[in-house]
Amino acid sequence: MNTIRIPFPEMQSVFQRILMKHGFTAKKAEICAGIFAENSLEGIYSHGVYRFPRFVEYIKKAFIDVNAEPRLVQVAGALEQWDGQLGPGPLNARFCTNRAMQLASENGIGCVAIANTNHWMRGGTYGWQAAKKGFVFMGWTNTEANMPAWGAKESRLGNNPLVFAVPFGNEAIVLDFAMTQFSYGKMEAAQLEGKSLSFPGGFNKNGELTNEPGEILESRRALPIGYWKGAGLSLLLDILATVLSAGLSTRELSQKEAEYSVSQVFIAFSLKKLSNFPSIENTIIEIISDYKNSTPDESESEIRYPGERVLQTRAENLKNGIPVLKTIWEQVTKL
Amino acid sequence: MNTIRIPFPEMQSVFQRILMKHGFTAKKAEICAGIFAENSLEGIYSHGVYRFPRFVEYIKKAFIDVNAEPRLVQVAGALEQWDGQLGPGPLNARFCTNRAMQLASENGIGCVAIANTNHWMRGGTYGWQAAKKGFVFMGWTNTEANMPAWGAKESRLGNNPLVFAVPFGNEAIVLDFAMTQFSYGKMEAAQLEGKSLSFPGGFNKNGELTNEPGEILESRRALPIGYWKGAGLSLLLDILATVLSAGLSTRELSQKEAEYSVSQVFIAFSLKKLSNFPSIENTIIEIISDYKNSTPDESESEIRYPGERVLQTRAENLKNGIPVLKTIWEQVTKL
Repeated sequence: MNTIRIPFPEMQSVFQRILMKHGFTAKKAEICAGIFAENSLEGIYSHGVYRFPRFVEYIKKAFIDVNAEPRLVQVAGALEQWDGQLGPGPLNARFCTNRAMQLASENGIGCVAIANTNHWMRGGTYGWQAAKKGFVFMGWTNTEANMPAWGAKESRLGNNPLVFAVPFGNEAIVLDFAMTQFSYGKMEAAQLEGKSLSFPGGFNKNGELTNEPGEILESRRALPIGYWKGAGLSLLLDILATVLSAGLSTRELSQKEAEYSVSQVFIAFSLKKLSNFPSIENTIIEIISDYKNSTPDESESEIRYPGERVLQTRAENLKNGIPVLKTIWEQVTKL
Repeated sequence: MNTIRIPFPEMQSVFQRILMKHGFTAKKAEICAGIFAENSLEGIYSHGVYRFPRFVEYIKKAFIDVNAEPRLVQVAGALEQWDGQLGPGPLNARFCTNRAMQLASENGIGCVAIANTNHWMRGGTYGWQAAKKGFVFMGWTNTEANMPAWGAKESRLGNNPLVFAVPFGNEAIVLDFAMTQFSYGKMEAAQLEGKSLSFPGGFNKNGELTNEPGEILESRRALPIGYWKGAGLSLLLDILATVLSAGLSTRELSQKEAEYSVSQVFIAFSLKKLSNFPSIENTIIEIISDYKNSTPDESESEIRYPGERVLQTRAENLKNGIPVLKTIWEQVTKL
């Protein structure tokens, strides 16, 4: 397929122009375009350039209110509840991350739970945001149902992505993972390329584990990570996001015509308030050195920490431009 | 094998007598014996009666200091750092859970990180403790290395159990899971019984996934839940526990002659401080009803939420006594 390379500043300015055309202020368009362009720059194309057309579609359908601002619902000390008022997910999430960091600066730890927000695109974005400022970060979102409970046939759980991040030098270690072993996006891509999955990704319609993406796309029975464990974690993340934000649960989201009005949680810990702060950087370096010194297995590939690949992709794409399918980019520029 | 049934009060009083013999005060012996007996009552025998002899052995070896009390190291608002001073793990963990709940009552959210503590036995114990008082709970511990990094041959990661809990009526929903798909204890038991694992539990010495416990016990290559995802989560949980508590990392723990002086994190959220508190119970009931209404798969087994089985086991064992291998119980009573 025909791939072209778009320089980062060009991609951001194209996104910004389109967002302004759809009612964003210049300032908000710049920030939101920056998040979509950075996700693409760092290799998360599925939640960057390839997702941008759907973001615009959701604006047109009024699932996203471009002018909405998060509204403070209540304060319980270092725990705050906000209403996202259906504003743009990336802007709301960026706001909540900042607010959790402020609360952590004052109280050591801070938590913001937000109801009625929208898809945050790449969860890791907010992990990088907090960790690069010296905070430990944890956050998660619920989603519409796309994974069965353990022992069940039909999807009643979300894949509810969960993010953990810690500072690492001037960069960060960022773990960002969904509760399904493979996303439907990955399975669709594998099917298009005629490839099997590297590990079982779900059950076929006979209830047998399978590596064949087509069989899972047919049964809609995606596999939770760690089988019953990931299914349990998905359930708990949904309950926590729902009750802490007073927002909608996966069950309620799934009754809508599309996935909007989700519930999210953002927690920050201030490392700078700890007296061991000066030694923390070194502690993390020691743990990572030991980890990377592991003897590689039969695949002989490099042992990477979560987020490590991002640094390489970012450098490559900054130099050569962001790779995009030509047909998709043409479609984007016309939005 | 010959199994006998020990009534809960008898088990607790036997444990208490033994702990007092090994230097515990009557009060601390009662609490600690209660935790071991309750873990057994609720079906977690591996971290109850079957683990009790090793707990006594660790006291004798001075890995556990029966008289040590947690010491406050520093306060950063709602985030506190404590030193466990090698005290009994279950007592330290119970203390930290209470302290996190107090902090949450004052600040909405509270976090206690503790260094130099000991094995907490069943992590779920502390989830039940907090959730039954109306708090949301999250907590985790690091462990010695017992799982390879993704793409690695030898163990440099811990299985680092993670607990999430929420109130549910007068009971709780409690998810308590380690980062390995199966514990070494489970794999040893399966091998003894000549059984295969229900799903692959690790790699054999040739780097192939296997359901045969013997092959994994030989290779020591236990499988992380969700493959690379659980390996990443283990790494992050270790880094967070280590830096927040200023304690020892999995790397450092693994250099000791036995697993002691671990690092743990306890986080509580006060639901009662939220104005939506009155509706929370109902929200959780709705989510669980929907979840349990899933169509069962080919196995036709009941769809259970995390912690549901505990209620049944607790009732059975309260009525009939706690099942224990006769040889082990005889060994325990002689400690």
